[in-house]
Amino acid sequence: MPKLSLPCHADVVQAQQRINSYTVKTPVLTNPALNQQLGCELFFKCENLQRTGAFKFRGATNALLKLSPEQRQQGVITVSSGNHGAALAHAGKALGVKVKVGVPTNAPAIKRQNIEAGGAEITDIEPGMAAREAIVAKWQKEGESHFIPPYDHANIIAGQGTATLELLEQTDALDAVITPLGGGGLLSGACLACDGTEIQVFGAEPELANDAFLSLKAGERQSALPAKSLCDGLLTQIGELPFAIIQQRISDILVIKDEDTLSAMQLIWHHLKIIVEPSSAIALAAVIQNKALFEGKRVGLVLSGGNVAAQPEDIKLRQ
Amino acid sequence: MPKLSLPCHADVVQAQQRINSYTVKTPVLTNPALNQQLGCELFFKCENLQRTGAFKFRGATNALLKLSPEQRQQGVITVSSGNHGAALAHAGKALGVKVKVGVPTNAPAIKRQNIEAGGAEITDIEPGMAAREAIVAKWQKEGESHFIPPYDHANIIAGQGTATLELLEQTDALDAVITPLGGGGLLSGACLACDGTEIQVFGAEPELANDAFLSLKAGERQSALPAKSLCDGLLTQIGELPFAIIQQRISDILVIKDEDTLSAMQLIWHHLKIIVEPSSAIALAAVIQNKALFEGKRVGLVLSGGNVAAQPEDIKLRQ
Repeated sequence: MPKLSLPCHADVVQAQQRINSYTVKTPVLTNPALNQQLGCELFFKCENLQRTGAFKFRGATNALLKLSPEQRQQGVITVSSGNHGAALAHAGKALGVKVKVGVPTNAPAIKRQNIEAGGAEITDIEPGMAAREAIVAKWQKEGESHFIPPYDHANIIAGQGTATLELLEQTDALDAVITPLGGGGLLSGACLACDGTEIQVFGAEPELANDAFLSLKAGERQSALPAKSLCDGLLTQIGELPFAIIQQRISDILVIKDEDTLSAMQLIWHHLKIIVEPSSAIALAAVIQNKALFEGKRVGLVLSGGNVAAQPEDIKLRQ
Repeated sequence: MPKLSLPCHADVVQAQQRINSYTVKTPVLTNPALNQQLGCELFFKCENLQRTGAFKFRGATNALLKLSPEQRQQGVITVSSGNHGAALAHAGKALGVKVKVGVPTNAPAIKRQNIEAGGAEITDIEPGMAAREAIVAKWQKEGESHFIPPYDHANIIAGQGTATLELLEQTDALDAVITPLGGGGLLSGACLACDGTEIQVFGAEPELANDAFLSLKAGERQSALPAKSLCDGLLTQIGELPFAIIQQRISDILVIKDEDTLSAMQLIWHHLKIIVEPSSAIALAAVIQNKALFEGKRVGLVLSGGNVAAQPEDIKLRQ
């Protein structure tokens, strides 16, 4: 296998300078009641308050800004059931780049609406990797459109890393950072952002979609399970580049049951007064399920997004 | 009638210095989609993200810090069905002041829980002004406890004004500020904060609890209607001091139907990814219902709190 060319800390720093004027410097919230309950100090980086309601806007914006003028002229394509598609659509709108998105028919309605609201051209595709690859191949054959993948790309990873870089600037002396873990863009970006510090980096992954956990154990990527979780943003297999970065820097991957993620989501809604999707709440669940690990520590949690149409009660019923 | 001694702009500035290290500098959110939809630029001051989930923590903290050491030793009392009681309880906890709260039996469960969580001593009382006055009289007879009213007090008003003062520091060149209007503490504080500027100040009041609107027209306080609104924080009659301040400085009071407040609440949940109670969302409803008034303007909205236990669907059913 040829050696992968991995992005580094400096790429995250440069990405931040590049995307700064397009992204929201999202707030970091704290909550004394939760701190007391959990015996540690938590710092919630609210990427649910990012443009398009998710951190994905960072990577998408960075990827588009890194294109050549010719590539921007030609437009871009992607496949996404959710936040990446919406992020790319809105970033394209802001930067005047035409965006086409292949959207699986089982995508959550709110996420499909967000892609539409960004003015992207949507094509319905069947769920699954085969249909994804087919539509990308078809579009690339038809024209010169540039494919922007959701996470397995250096510019995407560097962009997502800015969420954690900002968190480090907004807080003092963190002991650990936890991010949700799906394709690995956010987590590998966090690894790069924390490079050169002593900060421990953890990923939180759903129990029934724990391919990254298994991959880390095995030392090589394991193929995706028939992944099953309420965390619709965390069902994808970890990407090649993210895995290579995570392997070098991660402290651990914490595997979480959906029921614990749901309880954590309700805690966040109640105490922090913000709306997060299950894929975000898993980071708090990771603290609750590993109290001893984080006791007395200052822990940053990246809340990845807030695009949940259903209310917690509905989600409970649908379990 | 003796001339009232009203707080002024300088009192708000001093209050801010006094309470700064206890309160959260809450973020100001913007949303391009809402701006486009409404044809103006909105700046949401998120006091739902304040300690105890409401701006009331500002006034309560300021009032306690203004007590003499002897008064703080003796403890304080109040009556509250909601956010003021919780704010005073938590401020008391932070400052080591004993707090007793008379809570009407019809208070929302989430607000009662917040009062309890602050460690205050709760006494159940019947709903209505008579029972409120009776319990205060009883407690004052029993001891030397200092009564901290929810809004009709210079130190409370100055404290609440810091929400708007902060908003002005966090934004440039606002044309207008809108706050919800119940007892008038938040709105009169906003009037003081905006003193010496050209910024227009508006109050948003529920249609079936519009005593302040009627009072402004009549030129003197009108007794409270049998107020009825989903905005449980806005049912009280406007206070004497707030009314005097508002009369001098207000641009207008905008009267809003509950159904419009509910739609606005759902817009906020959906677009901003934050949880606000109906009493907060009324400020956005005021923009939506008065589009021409705010067209092309930069408008600050103070989102007063987020202590809603019910989901929007539940609230709809309970209408």
